[in-house]
Amino acid sequence: MYRSTFDLRVRYGETDRMGFLFHAHYANYYEIGRTESIRQLGLSYRQIEEAGILMPVTDLSIKFMLPAHYDERITVVSVIPKMPEVRMIVQGEMLNEAGQCINRSEVRLTFLDAESKRIVTAPDMLTAKLSAHF
Amino acid sequence: MYRSTFDLRVRYGETDRMGFLFHAHYANYYEIGRTESIRQLGLSYRQIEEAGILMPVTDLSIKFMLPAHYDERITVVSVIPKMPEVRMIVQGEMLNEAGQCINRSEVRLTFLDAESKRIVTAPDMLTAKLSAHF
Amino acid sequence: MYRSTFDLRVRYGETDRMGFLFHAHYANYYEIGRTESIRQLGLSYRQIEEAGILMPVTDLSIKFMLPAHYDERITVVSVIPKMPEVRMIVQGEMLNEAGQCINRSEVRLTFLDAESKRIVTAPDMLTAKLSAHF
Amino acid sequence: MYRSTFDLRVRYGETDRMGFLFHAHYANYYEIGRTESIRQLGLSYRQIEEAGILMPVTDLSIKFMLPAHYDERITVVSVIPKMPEVRMIVQGEMLNEAGQCINRSEVRLTFLDAESKRIVTAPDMLTAKLSAHF
Repeated sequence: MYRSTFDLRVRYGETDRMGFLFHAHYANYYEIGRTESIRQLGLSYRQIEEAGILMPVTDLSIKFMLPAHYDERITVVSVIPKMPEVRMIVQGEMLNEAGQCINRSEVRLTFLDAESKRIVTAPDMLTAKLSAHF
Repeated sequence: MYRSTFDLRVRYGETDRMGFLFHAHYANYYEIGRTESIRQLGLSYRQIEEAGILMPVTDLSIKFMLPAHYDERITVVSVIPKMPEVRMIVQGEMLNEAGQCINRSEVRLTFLDAESKRIVTAPDMLTAKLSAHF
Repeated sequence: MYRSTFDLRVRYGETDRMGFLFHAHYANYYEIGRTESIRQLGLSYRQIEEAGILMPVTDLSIKFMLPAHYDERITVVSVIPKMPEVRMIVQGEMLNEAGQCINRSEVRLTFLDAESKRIVTAPDMLTAKLSAHF
Repeated sequence: MYRSTFDLRVRYGETDRMGFLFHAHYANYYEIGRTESIRQLGLSYRQIEEAGILMPVTDLSIKFMLPAHYDERITVVSVIPKMPEVRMIVQGEMLNEAGQCINRSEVRLTFLDAESKRIVTAPDMLTAKLSAHF
């Protein structure tokens, strides 16, 4: 498996009137976690797109255990449990500053040819980097 | 069951560079659908909060089938399949202008006393309105 | 001049932990006001883009007088004070449910050829619709 | 004067279908710049709020010169040109990776007592930290 972490801080504009991170933003945080996960492989999601491959999300499930608060530093953990083929699974969790797991997710993405919009297998530029971890 | 619909239009700032509604915003659309669903009962989510009850999301799952595009009119369908007790389930789907189902979701929410932050049963002001539908 | 109005409601995810509409979202509301202003002319901003013209914002100024609250119905007023040439000025204000002016803005946009990214004059499809108002 | 910088990266969900950072998000970036500016003084905006002082934005003006692109690293510069009294002025600019100035802003904020919602002078906890720079 391939596991990476990325820290970010809850922005004022991301809180809601409960004073918590608004629930829809968690999907965005996990997206940022995936992006940085790929960057830590020595590649960037931007490069994958520029090579003509899009990676839309097809399934998203999130379990909310504890809230995240304004200005709190959150660690987003991203795990790719197996080598992607026509789809990629990313399991995530978020830890607060006290190390508590506050949130869990599973996201499924597919690989699309940007021109034809047809499903393709994971591009070599990604699998070459990932293979060292499997 | 209680079923309601609400139409909204994809905003420019909600699209991403693929030209589609960014995936994290679907959770927000479903939240707006729930809010309007409650309003159509003759109540408002704001009144529920003002009565001291919060309704945080505890579980969210979304299945993405087709993209939503800039300026497209989207119908958000919200279904409450059974009377809420300590939690409420809302099943949703989104239809595009051609009537295609582009997205499906299930959201679970809990009822919290705003002061004590303890789980409580669904408030009477909500169940009284819902009971006519079950 | 051409004046139009559009109503929208403050979404939960747009509030911040002060309980108010987060200040960065006003620019988005004014953008939605402009979009609907063009639609009320019998055209759509989407059609303008599809005809190869982009309209990026070059200047934005906003004066905040009173807050907007969760679930409040806000009327966005958009005024185009003179026929656009290479740039378009849109003056806006927001009214709350009590009819108070809570916010004022001025936005300047330019017209860009989407291919060459060069500044062009306002497209005929827009000026033809606007000219009836000047 | 007090000057600080903070780097952030354009998120996928912040781009629009032009492929650029959506214009309403610049106000958010400048807000993040201010928050980190205060943190670099050895204080946090969260502490100011917890001490009962809110700092709503009263005026915002932004000049857009060049776009910011997906995944680009942007440096947000925040300058407080004079000691705040009942209001604080923050002048900002954004630099792209090539060092070009892509955007300029001026934001005015006021200090409010969170209870009474009345305007107050800048709190000592902030002016004590700032005074070393003036």
